[in-house]
Amino acid sequence: MSLDAAATKPHEQLAAFLADDLNAVNDMIRARMASEHAPRIPEVTAHLVEAGGKRLRPMLTLAAARLCGYEGPYHVHLAATVEFIHTATLLHDDVVDESSQRRGRPTANLLWDNTSSVLVGDYLFARSFQLMVETGSIRVLDILANASATIAEGEVLQLTAASDLATTEETYIQIVRGKTAALFSAAMEVGGEIAEQDAATKQALYDYGDALGIAFQIVDDLLDYGGTSATGKNVGDDFRERKLTLPVIRAVAQADETEKAFWVRTIQKGKQEDGDLDQAITLLAKYEAMESTRQDAIAWAEKAKAALERCPDHPLRTMLIDLADYVVARIT
Amino acid sequence: MSLDAAATKPHEQLAAFLADDLNAVNDMIRARMASEHAPRIPEVTAHLVEAGGKRLRPMLTLAAARLCGYEGPYHVHLAATVEFIHTATLLHDDVVDESSQRRGRPTANLLWDNTSSVLVGDYLFARSFQLMVETGSIRVLDILANASATIAEGEVLQLTAASDLATTEETYIQIVRGKTAALFSAAMEVGGEIAEQDAATKQALYDYGDALGIAFQIVDDLLDYGGTSATGKNVGDDFRERKLTLPVIRAVAQADETEKAFWVRTIQKGKQEDGDLDQAITLLAKYEAMESTRQDAIAWAEKAKAALERCPDHPLRTMLIDLADYVVARIT
Repeated sequence: MSLDAAATKPHEQLAAFLADDLNAVNDMIRARMASEHAPRIPEVTAHLVEAGGKRLRPMLTLAAARLCGYEGPYHVHLAATVEFIHTATLLHDDVVDESSQRRGRPTANLLWDNTSSVLVGDYLFARSFQLMVETGSIRVLDILANASATIAEGEVLQLTAASDLATTEETYIQIVRGKTAALFSAAMEVGGEIAEQDAATKQALYDYGDALGIAFQIVDDLLDYGGTSATGKNVGDDFRERKLTLPVIRAVAQADETEKAFWVRTIQKGKQEDGDLDQAITLLAKYEAMESTRQDAIAWAEKAKAALERCPDHPLRTMLIDLADYVVARIT
Repeated sequence: MSLDAAATKPHEQLAAFLADDLNAVNDMIRARMASEHAPRIPEVTAHLVEAGGKRLRPMLTLAAARLCGYEGPYHVHLAATVEFIHTATLLHDDVVDESSQRRGRPTANLLWDNTSSVLVGDYLFARSFQLMVETGSIRVLDILANASATIAEGEVLQLTAASDLATTEETYIQIVRGKTAALFSAAMEVGGEIAEQDAATKQALYDYGDALGIAFQIVDDLLDYGGTSATGKNVGDDFRERKLTLPVIRAVAQADETEKAFWVRTIQKGKQEDGDLDQAITLLAKYEAMESTRQDAIAWAEKAKAALERCPDHPLRTMLIDLADYVVARIT
C-alpha cells in the first residue's frame, strides 16, 4: 500500500492507499462473475462491474477492516460481496425504473432486458452469498442479511410512496436507508466485524456508513432540483418520475391551497406541463426547502465524522472524515 | 404428529404425519412475510404463499430432519426458508415468462407487475437469508448459497438455451437442476445437516432430492406433449415457448433433413402455424422420444428411492419412497 501524494479527492486517496487490496477485489470480482455454463452472465455484468465505477462501497469495507488493523484475507471477499450486492441492486433497479421511463418502447426488447437484469441480478446475489459464507462468520452473514432486508423493503417502500403526497420525512429516511445507507453501513460494519472489534467500535463504523449514505442520497436528491454546482445529472428527473424527495416533502407540508393543487396535479396525478419544473423549483425556494435540506445533509455528514472519533487514529480515518466532507462539498 | 389413515397420496401422508411441524412453518411464513413499512409485500406474496400449494419443498426439509431424529427448533426455520426461496423464484419467473407470453398486453400494467415481482421476490430472498442465519450453522448457509447459485445459473442457462436447437441433454439436466432439483436436494440436505448426520447420510438425502427433482421436472416436460394421463396443464405450452425439453432434444438429434427444417422453423425461428404441435408430437412418437424420456424419469425415481437405503428405517422414509413412485405415477 502506498499513499499517492498527487491524489487530492478523498476517494482517490482511499483508492491509492488501498490499491493492492482493490486489485485483489477486482481480481476476485472477475473470477466470481464468470459462469462456466452461462456466458451471458459476464456479458451482462461486465459493463456494470468493469465500467470503472468508484468502487466506493468495497473501499468502505477495505478501509474499515484496515483501519481496525485487520491482516487476514476476508476483507477482500467482503468488499467483493458488497460490490456484487450493489451491482445486483442496480440490475433490478433497471427493471423498476423502466416501468416509468420507457413506456413507449417495444415490449419485447424491454422485457428481454428485464429478463436478463432479473436473472443476472439473482446470480450476483447468489455469488455474493457464497463469498460471505467463505468468511465462516455467522455475524457477518447476520449483518448482510439484515442489510439485504432493509434494501429490499426500502425499494418496495419507494415504489408505494412514489407520487404519494402523504409521504413523511420518516418514510423518506427509511427509503434512503434502503436505497443507499444500508449497504454503506453494512460495508463498514463487516470490516470491523472480521477485525474482531468491540461492540462500540462496530457501532461507530455502522453509524459512519449510515450517516454518510444518508448525506450522500440527500445531496443526490437536492442536485436533482439544481443544487448549487454543475453535475452530469439531468435536473428534474425526480420531478418527472414523481418522487417524493426531502425538498418536495417540505414544500408540500407548507403549501397553501393553490400550491397543494399544483402538487396534486404534477406529482399525485402526474399531469405535467411545460414550466411545471420551474414552478416546482420556485416553490422549493419559497419555503427554503432547498436550504433546510442542504443543512440536513451537512448535519448527516457531521454525524458521520463524529462517529469515527471512537475509531483508532489512522491515515484511513482521516480519509474517511475527508470523504464525509467531500460528499456534501457539492452543495456547500 | 399423527398418521392420518385416510390419507392415501404420499404427499398427503407426509402432510398428515408432519402436521404440527407444517403448522409451525405456516405460522413462521406468515410472521416473516409481514412488513411494518411496506404493506404491499404481504399483498403480493399472500396469493402465492397462502394459495394452498402442497408445500412439497418445506415438507422435504421437515421429513429429512425428523427422519434423522432431529428434535430442535430449526427445521421449521429451514422449511420456511425453502418455501420463501421457492416463492421468490416464482415471482422472478413471472417477469421472465411474461417476456414470451404477453407481448400484446399494455406495457405499463405488465411492468407494474414486473416491478412488484422483482422487488417482493428480493424481499423474500432477504427474509429467507435472515431465517437461515438464525440457525447459526455455516454449513446450512453454504448448502443454500450453493443451491441459490445453481438456481440462478440454471435460469440464465434456460434463457439462453431457449430456441437453441444445439442444446444438449447435459445442458437440459443442468437447467432442470437449476429449475427444480437444486432446491429439492438442498431442502433434503439441510434437514440432515441440522440433525448432525454423517457425510454419507447427508449425501444420500441430497441424492434423493436431486433425483426426485429431476424426475419431477422430466415428468412435467413430458406431460407438456400429452403424456399418458389427464392433467390441468395445457398441452403444447413448451412448444409454443420454444423450449428445448428432453423429448424434443432427442427427436431433433435424430431428425432427417425435412424434419430438421421443421424444428428450425418452429423452434429456432418461432414461426409456428396451425398443425405444428400435432406434427411435433408425431415426430416425438416416431423416434420414441416420449417413451425413452419416460424411461429416464422412471430411472431417476428409482435412483431417488435407492439413495434412501442409507437412511434410518422410519415411517417417513417409506413415505418419501412412495413419493418418488408417485411423481412418476402420472406417466406410468
